[in-house]
Amino acid sequence: MSLPAAKPGELSLLSQIRRRAARTSSGGLSLGIGDDCALLRLGPGEELAVTTDLSIAGRHFQLGWHPPESVGHRALARGLSDLAAMGARPVAAFLSLGLPGELTKPSKRKPSWMTRFYDGLLALAEIHKTPLAGGDLALSPIPLADIVLVGAVPRRKALLRSGARPGHLLYVTGSLGGSAAGLAQLADLAAASAKRHRRLLNISDHLATQLASHLYPQPRVPQALWLRQHALATAAIDLSDGLSTDLAHLCTESSVTAEVDSVRLPIHPGATLEQALHGGEDYELLFTAQPSVQIPKSIAGVPITRIGRILVPRKGRPLIAMVTARGKHPLEPRGWEHFS
Amino acid sequence: MSLPAAKPGELSLLSQIRRRAARTSSGGLSLGIGDDCALLRLGPGEELAVTTDLSIAGRHFQLGWHPPESVGHRALARGLSDLAAMGARPVAAFLSLGLPGELTKPSKRKPSWMTRFYDGLLALAEIHKTPLAGGDLALSPIPLADIVLVGAVPRRKALLRSGARPGHLLYVTGSLGGSAAGLAQLADLAAASAKRHRRLLNISDHLATQLASHLYPQPRVPQALWLRQHALATAAIDLSDGLSTDLAHLCTESSVTAEVDSVRLPIHPGATLEQALHGGEDYELLFTAQPSVQIPKSIAGVPITRIGRILVPRKGRPLIAMVTARGKHPLEPRGWEHFS
Repeated sequence: MSLPAAKPGELSLLSQIRRRAARTSSGGLSLGIGDDCALLRLGPGEELAVTTDLSIAGRHFQLGWHPPESVGHRALARGLSDLAAMGARPVAAFLSLGLPGELTKPSKRKPSWMTRFYDGLLALAEIHKTPLAGGDLALSPIPLADIVLVGAVPRRKALLRSGARPGHLLYVTGSLGGSAAGLAQLADLAAASAKRHRRLLNISDHLATQLASHLYPQPRVPQALWLRQHALATAAIDLSDGLSTDLAHLCTESSVTAEVDSVRLPIHPGATLEQALHGGEDYELLFTAQPSVQIPKSIAGVPITRIGRILVPRKGRPLIAMVTARGKHPLEPRGWEHFS
Repeated sequence: MSLPAAKPGELSLLSQIRRRAARTSSGGLSLGIGDDCALLRLGPGEELAVTTDLSIAGRHFQLGWHPPESVGHRALARGLSDLAAMGARPVAAFLSLGLPGELTKPSKRKPSWMTRFYDGLLALAEIHKTPLAGGDLALSPIPLADIVLVGAVPRRKALLRSGARPGHLLYVTGSLGGSAAGLAQLADLAAASAKRHRRLLNISDHLATQLASHLYPQPRVPQALWLRQHALATAAIDLSDGLSTDLAHLCTESSVTAEVDSVRLPIHPGATLEQALHGGEDYELLFTAQPSVQIPKSIAGVPITRIGRILVPRKGRPLIAMVTARGKHPLEPRGWEHFS
């Protein structure tokens, strides 16, 4: 990694990041920023979970819409949510950051975009006791952030996408569609703001709270660890691309089909059914459990809702069916596609 | 990570990568592409080494100059070289790739830029038995690749930058300046080609061999593992930014100074002294050893050269001094700065 390589031009920037990153506590990190690699330790009998997520301006966030703190928060949340989907505890995060030079410089006594990005990222890292252990830094014509999360999970105990079996029940944490609804609201505000020739949205604290599901989604790490420790979930995936798409992945990897009860869906206040089904970026946990198992109404303060069931695949049966008062119909995966 | 999440638009792309990545063998990978995270196992008593390196078009490579195979090779070589610098064995690689849509599509029966990029990356991965275990894929207006390497090293046995002590001798693998010389030649060819209004350089096999130090640098993984297993090196760093800059890092982290004997430097045929000192991207290993220790003339087929010694820091003594026939002079770090 190049971030530790403190060159003259990078020195103040890097020592600043080093100092801030060092503050986040961790048991697993034996050598952080300052050598060619970071060194990490796992507990006995643990295996490693590793995930990487790329966020690119214009595609995963809008420079003019998203406060830099939100971009940093969301980048880390994506990675933490992937760990949660496996039931892995976070050990360390790594960040490769590419930025145009002007975003690294403070202006008019205000901190730089980069500083505010780290503010958002490190605040969430602190909550989940995940040290930023290294990464890379480069000039880039467009802002981009690749986040790497390293986690640990007891051997053979990871929650997989492939563990769902016919008869298992389908659950989801929290509520659905809040992120998509928030994004739609943000887009409306940006359009109105553009009419007044403002390039950047000014988001008040009140508005940020209202849009929190989108700007500051909470990865379900404690809920996932609880489920894994109690061996209650048979399969899991995080809702990054939208329920319709992520449930399709789970079904495909498990070689099963699923039914979703429309009336049971915990739709976020202000969100539409469409947004709840296909919106994506909610970072809730979708999981399955044996029907004999008692799943609590809430885990670590987050409500759990049963939304459907797993079925055997049969000729003519769709991968996912929606059950409504008017009958059943196929639910096509229409969530977010990164690369279409 | 999002690469495993096979969406309709990605399906053929991803299954292609999956199929190819699966071919590379590894003992440490228990679950590869196809879930939210990859799962890896270490041996008992090992700790993890993790490094990330960002390569961006226009900054780390030129789309018009570098064959895509070289871009893929060099991206992985950077990460493998960081592992080598710690004496860590490679366990798995992860790649976050951002590309403009047109680079993912084959044209006129020729494979796509992306396919050729993977050709180069996976060929080097095969040599070092490093499976590509996951990553992310996104549309990006500019091509970029963030490579993550996960390695393993026995606890407390990693080669650190901080272990050099006064009296230790300074060694380097292979030769220096070859990459910078190759890059200069590439730039000349590109300028000549531009005069003939050709946008892309056509690099013959003969030329590629001639420019191999630059296009296809060999990370010194076997040499580093040998040194670590025999406990011969007291400190190490890889030469990614140039001898002058990387030796300065080693000295700073070890709180020592160093002297380099100009006449001893193994300058690559065709390279200048300047290129050997400040060129960067040679991915050779710079290491120190006790003076009482016998370092072989070559390790795993690569020559080893003693190039200087470590000294105590003293008032008025430069961090690094060059010793020439005409005396000593300070050697300023003038290697590559990623972010100046």
